[in-house]
Amino acid sequence: MSLRHALLALLEAGPMTGYELAKQFDQSADRVWHAPHPQIYTELRKLEGEELVAADEQPRGTKAVKRAYRLTPAGEGELRRWVSEVEAPAAVRDAVYLKATYFEYAEPDVVRRQFELHRAHHQEQLQRWERHVAQLRAHETELLQRRLAHAPEADHEAIVAYKVHVYQGMAERARTEIAWAERGLELVKKLSG
Amino acid sequence: MSLRHALLALLEAGPMTGYELAKQFDQSADRVWHAPHPQIYTELRKLEGEELVAADEQPRGTKAVKRAYRLTPAGEGELRRWVSEVEAPAAVRDAVYLKATYFEYAEPDVVRRQFELHRAHHQEQLQRWERHVAQLRAHETELLQRRLAHAPEADHEAIVAYKVHVYQGMAERARTEIAWAERGLELVKKLSG
Repeated sequence: MSLRHALLALLEAGPMTGYELAKQFDQSADRVWHAPHPQIYTELRKLEGEELVAADEQPRGTKAVKRAYRLTPAGEGELRRWVSEVEAPAAVRDAVYLKATYFEYAEPDVVRRQFELHRAHHQEQLQRWERHVAQLRAHETELLQRRLAHAPEADHEAIVAYKVHVYQGMAERARTEIAWAERGLELVKKLSG
Repeated sequence: MSLRHALLALLEAGPMTGYELAKQFDQSADRVWHAPHPQIYTELRKLEGEELVAADEQPRGTKAVKRAYRLTPAGEGELRRWVSEVEAPAAVRDAVYLKATYFEYAEPDVVRRQFELHRAHHQEQLQRWERHVAQLRAHETELLQRRLAHAPEADHEAIVAYKVHVYQGMAERARTEIAWAERGLELVKKLSG
């Protein structure tokens, strides 16, 4: 049920069309809560049905209309209720770690490729998180600018600081995975050499 | 689709009843791939239907029978095929991190409780992983003993080493989360103080 709250949080920055919302989602919440676009549109229709968001029709060019979604007071309330509810720790479901538990069945070359892929993926993620932290600190993301534009000055520090804390945490996670993959590569070398 | 492979891998240690399998799952694979018992039984029936496992009826006491599941050669083949296929990195879906991105909406006390719960959970997990690593190294888990009993001597080092590597990795992850929660607690103190 986290997707709906991510969408409500995005709309807190200001009204957006479904297309804009999906685009903003990809550049922010998707990094900690992945969801494909069709799922976003489905959830948005549900939120509209429950009157947590409302759509305003706006002209697009001279002939078409576009629907811009905005948070309703009920949606704003639901967002605050969710944030104020302490989240239970999630169960682990990690296919790479599960598979690695049985790596004795695999050829050393497969094991090596798995650890190399893991390292490369998390190196890429690490760069992404570090770039995002730098952008947040410089108030460079569009979403953050929109949010800060209508938030009380007194809240600005917290708005930026919690986001930075999350993405620094993601960077630390990536470093932990890179180190795990590197120890894995040493292990396969030792076992097969 | 990882659950079925975890079940095949467990049965590689030797035949088990559904009950034993669920119990062994809880003590091993569940820690990296969580699944509730009803899901395990459903998957087991599917595996039997696909002839990847077979059931032998054995007497239970004088009146009842129990069904012991064993890996078929096709199941053994499927297990090896899965282990030999490099696993793509999974997308992140982390409700705690997602929520933390919007902690400016929450009262400091809620934020504090969230980080405290996160720290306590991962401290508990850390102890669990460290205990499991020690048990694996001492060949103290029943599952490992069963597996080693019929595995070639030459494979014993790898069988233990990969499992130790996975659970050490889980321990490192827990340490990363504990550190994140502690930095979070410092942050909420700074912002609210």
